[in-house]
Amino acid sequence: MEYEEPLFFHVMQYAAAADRDVIDMVSGNPDWGSPPALAEGLPQYADEGGAAFQYPPSEGLLELREEIAARRDVDVEQVIVTDGAGEANYLAMARALERDAGREVILTDPVYPYYPGRATMLGGRATYVPAARDGSLDPARVREAASDETACIVVNTPNNPTGAVYDAETMAELVDIARTVDALLVSDEVYDHFDYAGRFASALAADSDHRVVTNSFSKSLAITGFRVGYAVFPPSLVDAAKTRHMLTNVAGSRPAQHAVLHALRNTGPAYFERTRELLTDRLAAFADALEAAGAEYTSPEGGFYVLCRFDGVPGTLENVKRLVDEAGVAGMPGETFGEARADWLRFALVTPRAEEAAGRLAEFLA
Amino acid sequence: MEYEEPLFFHVMQYAAAADRDVIDMVSGNPDWGSPPALAEGLPQYADEGGAAFQYPPSEGLLELREEIAARRDVDVEQVIVTDGAGEANYLAMARALERDAGREVILTDPVYPYYPGRATMLGGRATYVPAARDGSLDPARVREAASDETACIVVNTPNNPTGAVYDAETMAELVDIARTVDALLVSDEVYDHFDYAGRFASALAADSDHRVVTNSFSKSLAITGFRVGYAVFPPSLVDAAKTRHMLTNVAGSRPAQHAVLHALRNTGPAYFERTRELLTDRLAAFADALEAAGAEYTSPEGGFYVLCRFDGVPGTLENVKRLVDEAGVAGMPGETFGEARADWLRFALVTPRAEEAAGRLAEFLA
Repeated sequence: MEYEEPLFFHVMQYAAAADRDVIDMVSGNPDWGSPPALAEGLPQYADEGGAAFQYPPSEGLLELREEIAARRDVDVEQVIVTDGAGEANYLAMARALERDAGREVILTDPVYPYYPGRATMLGGRATYVPAARDGSLDPARVREAASDETACIVVNTPNNPTGAVYDAETMAELVDIARTVDALLVSDEVYDHFDYAGRFASALAADSDHRVVTNSFSKSLAITGFRVGYAVFPPSLVDAAKTRHMLTNVAGSRPAQHAVLHALRNTGPAYFERTRELLTDRLAAFADALEAAGAEYTSPEGGFYVLCRFDGVPGTLENVKRLVDEAGVAGMPGETFGEARADWLRFALVTPRAEEAAGRLAEFLA
Repeated sequence: MEYEEPLFFHVMQYAAAADRDVIDMVSGNPDWGSPPALAEGLPQYADEGGAAFQYPPSEGLLELREEIAARRDVDVEQVIVTDGAGEANYLAMARALERDAGREVILTDPVYPYYPGRATMLGGRATYVPAARDGSLDPARVREAASDETACIVVNTPNNPTGAVYDAETMAELVDIARTVDALLVSDEVYDHFDYAGRFASALAADSDHRVVTNSFSKSLAITGFRVGYAVFPPSLVDAAKTRHMLTNVAGSRPAQHAVLHALRNTGPAYFERTRELLTDRLAAFADALEAAGAEYTSPEGGFYVLCRFDGVPGTLENVKRLVDEAGVAGMPGETFGEARADWLRFALVTPRAEEAAGRLAEFLA
């Protein structure tokens, strides 16, 4: 079996090795800092030592699962704490493909590049439904594509890379499609705290045995390296998912879970509000500079990625390397995200130098 | 697809919920404390914050991989840092089964209970080779069982639950068998620091494309909850394993990796020596008390588990629960470890009350 390694790490390494100043906008590594309570949790944990350093429950620290369950208004038994949203999506897609209800995995185009590789690794076969130019997803097209062969429909809202936020009607329709063809909707909602229009709708709103919601604290608490995420499974599927989690990883890392729990208990809404404001300003400044340069670009409703198209510079890996070397700006090639945006480039707004980066791009294109 | 959840967590929960004082000897959670440098690494990491909180390289922090590579005398490119030995074994077995070189997984009986579940989860079919009564494994029996259908041979040395340490000749033979039938030997060596006779032999001694060595810091640094382990793959197989690691977990947890690196750099051999002395004494006292009670038991050459057999009390889950309730001692049922020791019980020597536990068992049996 062969499956492809996502390109993220490759591009980051190329940018880091460049012999010049490069503004890194490759990966979604937040630069705005974690809430103070996050770091406080680690020395506190270190002082406990002994028994506190041993296995947490396989499905995660109970207090953390309770905190998540309360916030998402679900039963604590439905929550599995995972090694980031990555493992949560792995568990959800594996469960979908093990139900003996087809091998097809419906993905969107553009697509987050880990999904196709994971689908293939798990024995699935990817089918793509194109998103509209503005990033929105027409559920009617998903319904057309879905069949008895469909095991799984994977969506991401707010969306990486388009910045689209799917509305409540779309989410309800997607759950209904999954129910109709006896598939699972996997809704990856890691950017739920980065919803600028306030219209994010979780798949959890529809009570159904046909949807799994995945999430993580990587983006919302600015800790992509801690690897704490979670999946909310329907009661009928959660036990098998817990078993796969146990057989894959035994358990997640406890120091990180402890720190996240401490942060959740001691961080108010102001932290998340400030982050949204910072990103709103940053996105506007980046867009203005691109506008001035005459580039085509998306204005995200959520998340912190911008897709741009520059005439004569299609979004190939080769061109990304050229931009690193010649413009000093590192982004991701559009071709990484499927066919629909192969001409485009994706930039992550995770640097205070985003506006400067847009200026460099404008100069390069001039 | 169905696969069974290992019983560990179930028994631990039962013991914890008991309405009396119970000496917990269920799981291999070390009680002797981590080296001081381990806990020091966490506040140090917490102070860094920002970029240090973001994704480590998918295959693990470079400095940690270098430290491991130097200690094991392998190329750093062969090392993948994993979520404990659990994920390392998952990656190794998955690679073996994806080579299109058979679906059979040869395991020993007794067996560490995660292996069969993982084999089934990954689409393999388990075949068991019985260990001798003293726990040793006769490679001739493995060679007899091996065929073109064999994808993988999984062994654990020092062994859980038998306490056997396979000698250098056995390890060389096992690697040779894997080569002969074009399979992978997966050698799980998590108890390598707990070798009382000093004759542990790693599968790494044989340079071969047909063996993967897995390990973790869970036991050697007394941090089962940190989830930091590693796999050493042959150069020809490491890239595909890195990709599966990335598609499953993206990366491991960085605070834990940082703490382990700090501990490795600042912990001398005395810590490991002291632990071995403590366990040698504890094992002797436990054995003496069992001897006095007329029980049959194993004297481990490595690791920290003892198998016991009590007349009239076969090692069923039901009897384990009886011992919790009536003797106040919690162990693992022998039937968890395969058929060979279904009559036995396994006790983990992870409590200063081990001798007291043996006394309680003697009293119960009297």
